[in-house]
Amino acid sequence: MEKVKLGVVGLGGRGFGMVGTFLNVEDCEIVAVCDKYPDRVERAEKLITEKSGKAPKTFTSFEEFINYEGMEAVYIATSWEEHLVQAIESMKAGKITAVEVGGAQSVKECFDLVKTYEKTKTPIMLMENCCYDKFELLTTALVRKGMLGEIVNCHGAYGHDLRAEVLGGNVNRHYRLNHYINENCENYPTHELGPIAKILDINRGNRMVSLVSVASKSRGMQAFSKTDKNPDKNLTNQEFKQGDIVETIITCENGETISLKLDTSLPRYYSREFTVNGTLGRANGEANLIYLDSVDYGPELWHSGEAIAKYNNNAEDYNEYLPSFWKDITEEEKKLGHGGMDYFLCKNFIKAVKDGVKEMPIDVYDAAAWMCITALSAKSIKKNGKPVKIPDFTKGKYKTRKSEDVVEL
Amino acid sequence: MEKVKLGVVGLGGRGFGMVGTFLNVEDCEIVAVCDKYPDRVERAEKLITEKSGKAPKTFTSFEEFINYEGMEAVYIATSWEEHLVQAIESMKAGKITAVEVGGAQSVKECFDLVKTYEKTKTPIMLMENCCYDKFELLTTALVRKGMLGEIVNCHGAYGHDLRAEVLGGNVNRHYRLNHYINENCENYPTHELGPIAKILDINRGNRMVSLVSVASKSRGMQAFSKTDKNPDKNLTNQEFKQGDIVETIITCENGETISLKLDTSLPRYYSREFTVNGTLGRANGEANLIYLDSVDYGPELWHSGEAIAKYNNNAEDYNEYLPSFWKDITEEEKKLGHGGMDYFLCKNFIKAVKDGVKEMPIDVYDAAAWMCITALSAKSIKKNGKPVKIPDFTKGKYKTRKSEDVVEL
Repeated sequence: MEKVKLGVVGLGGRGFGMVGTFLNVEDCEIVAVCDKYPDRVERAEKLITEKSGKAPKTFTSFEEFINYEGMEAVYIATSWEEHLVQAIESMKAGKITAVEVGGAQSVKECFDLVKTYEKTKTPIMLMENCCYDKFELLTTALVRKGMLGEIVNCHGAYGHDLRAEVLGGNVNRHYRLNHYINENCENYPTHELGPIAKILDINRGNRMVSLVSVASKSRGMQAFSKTDKNPDKNLTNQEFKQGDIVETIITCENGETISLKLDTSLPRYYSREFTVNGTLGRANGEANLIYLDSVDYGPELWHSGEAIAKYNNNAEDYNEYLPSFWKDITEEEKKLGHGGMDYFLCKNFIKAVKDGVKEMPIDVYDAAAWMCITALSAKSIKKNGKPVKIPDFTKGKYKTRKSEDVVEL
Repeated sequence: MEKVKLGVVGLGGRGFGMVGTFLNVEDCEIVAVCDKYPDRVERAEKLITEKSGKAPKTFTSFEEFINYEGMEAVYIATSWEEHLVQAIESMKAGKITAVEVGGAQSVKECFDLVKTYEKTKTPIMLMENCCYDKFELLTTALVRKGMLGEIVNCHGAYGHDLRAEVLGGNVNRHYRLNHYINENCENYPTHELGPIAKILDINRGNRMVSLVSVASKSRGMQAFSKTDKNPDKNLTNQEFKQGDIVETIITCENGETISLKLDTSLPRYYSREFTVNGTLGRANGEANLIYLDSVDYGPELWHSGEAIAKYNNNAEDYNEYLPSFWKDITEEEKKLGHGGMDYFLCKNFIKAVKDGVKEMPIDVYDAAAWMCITALSAKSIKKNGKPVKIPDFTKGKYKTRKSEDVVEL
């Protein structure tokens, strides 16, 4: 069996990490790497050569990289503002495209992405790893079996203390810094929205029709910049436009609501707060718990600390409903990025390429619909939470497209 | 020392329960009770007579009750739509007024409440018991000591599975039923908003300026009505207007945001989700946890179920910051309603009456600002989340009014 010949562009923290993951996917061979920084290219080249015994072609020019004929697929992990621009070029060059997550800079670039796909028919997949995480897929399985009843509301957050990482942007050449200084929006919606959109059949019988988005004041980054934990003293007392907490409520055509929270510049533990509320039960990823009428209905614990203690991690009781790849996960797979989900994501993409899949498990309409939330939230925030319409990137096709979850590997 | 002569109107579940609580407050004597249902009056009369050895005056007419000259203070626990109407009559009759929580039916009645207070100067207190709960007061203490830094965002919920209670409305003569059938709003904001508003100094240097409110579809009640848990078969398949989950985001003049969630008609465990996010730390009441940069900053646990397990109930480590009445709570006090907070609330009101306090710990401006959220959310929901302005009931006095928490007893 021939291996999939993959090129990787963007070799910072995420791109380099994913090189390590892709190197462990059996049917994948990394044949080319690209970054504008030569030291990053060198580091990736070294790892690939060591691991596979074969040196990849190396590039510092995206133009040259994307036209390299020796590769059939490309994984893009550059900065947020480059993702969709490069994904469009990649599709035009006929490379099956895997593009990392992040927010769209404008609604127009989401439409451009869709148009390019519809014209070129080059398969494209949004690499949303959280669509492959354990609790999200367990919940999806319970929803599909009807165990949570009719779903009426979902919630998710990107709760991740990024203060040191953002402030280290000049030192680490990290792209987030300028966004936090100059913009104010739900800048990273897809980790939580992706799995929710799959569950709610967005673009497949349902769609998101409008949102409101409100930002708190911005204090966390500046306060942190004055402490000894700030990695870049040049940024001491820097002002930031990005509100510390951005809350967004999306309304869907079928009447469900989705609330999203961006919470990345204040002290906190990591959580995506993934929550699905249905007429028969509730799944809450923060405490890794499943609450079902059929099992748990009865007298309540008055103190929620006790309730949380009671239910915390009871999701383990439902492991039989997990997809087989999560049931059979090995210790080695767990180490390949974020507890396993990165490996399943990469494996799924490579399998789709090998199988000649035309519509990827997370496709161009998903990418456009999920990523446009960033641009639309900025618009709503500027007008104190005014409702903003969300476009239908499928142009009506969502009415007949069938529900499809990320597939078994 | 003379005891405070209290009258109680509204002797349903809450009112009758609070009769029991007030009977345990040393300086209080219940001298009159009123309800339109004679059997409720009789039940309360019996309890009071047994406990105090002295029968109260009994009324089925509010008009006659409120003009009874033998009482100086009144506690109102009737239906939501009667709260403010009766509070106004009570102030006009010169009775020091304690009014139970709930949402306002209109902004106008909130203004009427304020106008009546300003004209009559009769002290009035909103009986928001959650302002006296342990975690909320612990968090308030930490905020006042600066341990959470500058506060930028707060969140709270009324997460309480009320399906059986609401559907039992005709059987139990409970007022919620008709609201759920006919209205769609954040119908019960004050349990979560009250303690948050205190922390953010609302009406005391800060104010709430606007909100957006979005409701999910309504499915939980109807689905439940078809099960064998429905206590009233006449309501099988009843339709409800009230969305299962209503999410509201409030913006404050000083740049903080507050998100509220009403979640009362789906399967779930009880939680107010009380959360305060500051530049130096985070308090989360659901898991009863305090996360401080100064103590907890460091490598993150990737799985939030583990993070929750780690921090759950660590608030106990901060007990030294609790107000003394929570430090010294007795087993008996805990039994006097909702784990102790009802007793502290009643004791505080009675003490304020005895001390001749003019501005109650939770005053008329608090009542108006917190309760008007219900009427305003209905307006925003009707327009798909359009921002709605929140009036300043203090007419500018908030700029100079000083921060004041609920007091030590």
